Amino acid sequence: MNRLTSNYHLISGELTGFGHRLLVRVYFEDTDFSGVVYHARFLHFLERGRSDFLRLKGIGHQELADGLYGEPMAFVVRHMDIDFLRPARIDEVLSVETRTALLGGARIVLHQRVLRGDEILIEAKVKVAVISPEGKPRRMPEAVSAILAVEAAGG
Amino acid sequence: MNRLTSNYHLISGELTGFGHRLLVRVYFEDTDFSGVVYHARFLHFLERGRSDFLRLKGIGHQELADGLYGEPMAFVVRHMDIDFLRPARIDEVLSVETRTALLGGARIVLHQRVLRGDEILIEAKVKVAVISPEGKPRRMPEAVSAILAVEAAGG
Amino acid sequence: MNRLTSNYHLISGELTGFGHRLLVRVYFEDTDFSGVVYHARFLHFLERGRSDFLRLKGIGHQELADGLYGEPMAFVVRHMDIDFLRPARIDEVLSVETRTALLGGARIVLHQRVLRGDEILIEAKVKVAVISPEGKPRRMPEAVSAILAVEAAGG
Amino acid sequence: MNRLTSNYHLISGELTGFGHRLLVRVYFEDTDFSGVVYHARFLHFLERGRSDFLRLKGIGHQELADGLYGEPMAFVVRHMDIDFLRPARIDEVLSVETRTALLGGARIVLHQRVLRGDEILIEAKVKVAVISPEGKPRRMPEAVSAILAVEAAGG
Repeated sequence: MNRLTSNYHLISGELTGFGHRLLVRVYFEDTDFSGVVYHARFLHFLERGRSDFLRLKGIGHQELADGLYGEPMAFVVRHMDIDFLRPARIDEVLSVETRTALLGGARIVLHQRVLRGDEILIEAKVKVAVISPEGKPRRMPEAVSAILAVEAAGG
Repeated sequence: MNRLTSNYHLISGELTGFGHRLLVRVYFEDTDFSGVVYHARFLHFLERGRSDFLRLKGIGHQELADGLYGEPMAFVVRHMDIDFLRPARIDEVLSVETRTALLGGARIVLHQRVLRGDEILIEAKVKVAVISPEGKPRRMPEAVSAILAVEAAGG
Repeated sequence: MNRLTSNYHLISGELTGFGHRLLVRVYFEDTDFSGVVYHARFLHFLERGRSDFLRLKGIGHQELADGLYGEPMAFVVRHMDIDFLRPARIDEVLSVETRTALLGGARIVLHQRVLRGDEILIEAKVKVAVISPEGKPRRMPEAVSAILAVEAAGG
Repeated sequence: MNRLTSNYHLISGELTGFGHRLLVRVYFEDTDFSGVVYHARFLHFLERGRSDFLRLKGIGHQELADGLYGEPMAFVVRHMDIDFLRPARIDEVLSVETRTALLGGARIVLHQRVLRGDEILIEAKVKVAVISPEGKPRRMPEAVSAILAVEAAGG
């Protein structure tokens, strides 16, 4: 398990000057009978990008749920504005780019794109918040907002 | 198979004064580890509403793909603006409401909502277009736009 | 919301002499680029059938999770033997049949089929068990096994 | 895009002595409200393993569909026997192992496992066949069976 293991971290993508980039493969499961990627699947790709961005910054969903940041909580998407510009097809490798655009209280706004090479397929603005296990809005933990605020300022 | 069969059409929801309403059940598959419905699943529910609205108006995806409306084509989502207002949970029955809001050329704008009883969980504006099997934009067939234009005018 | 509401219960299918039958519609989300239903989607259809069978017998997943049957628990699939006999396509209405085949301790074996009219598309044997929130095996609650044992004896 | 690009091929996993190994990450989308990975999602992981195994052997789904191997065709799953031994959770990295076990006519049998470290979570025997776009069984192309037969003999 040498080569794969030594590059183990690569499946989480990489931090970049603007935020984060993740490669995703289009599999059977992502396509529909019209021959291209089913539109809702792009939201999965975007969520993978957000999760891996946080992961490389040291924040895991399980740790959030376990209360390691003050109390148990989870990220939720509050609003999404998304353009489906071009279709993607089976076997293609796409890249998901994530930028922190704005930050306040319990909310983050992320700018995300899905590209095939230099072609932009998807553009999305995503408002994210943190909630308690009962679904109540929670203030973003300092540890989380500090990390993301830097990105927003720098991006 | 009497009772079920006699109500066979019900799984396509019903046409209403404003457009269409469909009931959907939340199953295991729709939830995630945070305990509520995974955000992208609501796009599936919305798509079921749109498909069944067209179905009750006499338009099937297979017929569109087979070229019964002039040439082979399929619906695609071009843009979505979506508010995730409240969470939904396992076992709940939700209703998906679909309204035709505007119509032009190869595009339809639909207003859609997901409710639990009278509570609005999701609000979305969805731009839809028709494309060829190769992904080229196609003009909406008269038969399709005629049906939907009436709704837009009346709604 | 009259007609739909008065038939509200229909989206849970119906109890039959052999167990349970549920109608499911094939939507965009269920298909893949080869033009037919993606194989793993049939497992979703089967799970909907099992859930609605239990539901009509008075057992909800949320109630199980909330500990109304002694302690918090959830159903899990332990083993599945599944034949994919024929493909299904967009817009089709399929029926999911569920039979309780055998019962012991913390386990149920269910026989399930997916049909299009009289044609069998899928046949599956599914071993199900109950576990605690930490994933530990739990004994099937009496209330649950009593209901299902009758089915197994009668079926 | 330097580090990521130079390791671009890694998202397809790697060929091994026994066949193929692929790392997959568990995301929100893969879990359900019981806190663990939804059972049907493992079939997606297995399918990604099979697809990437074929990919690294030079066989792409799009090329198969485009008729580069004699006539247009696609892989389908005919039968699956699957044990769900242990649950997987959010954020975990799993490995999918694929072995060619047997080969005849239009069919391949693959042995697949999903592991977390050395722990086996899932074991599956998967019968795969090739079909025409109309769903008719087709003989496995020589180019495909030659590649896979070697594996079966060697594994």
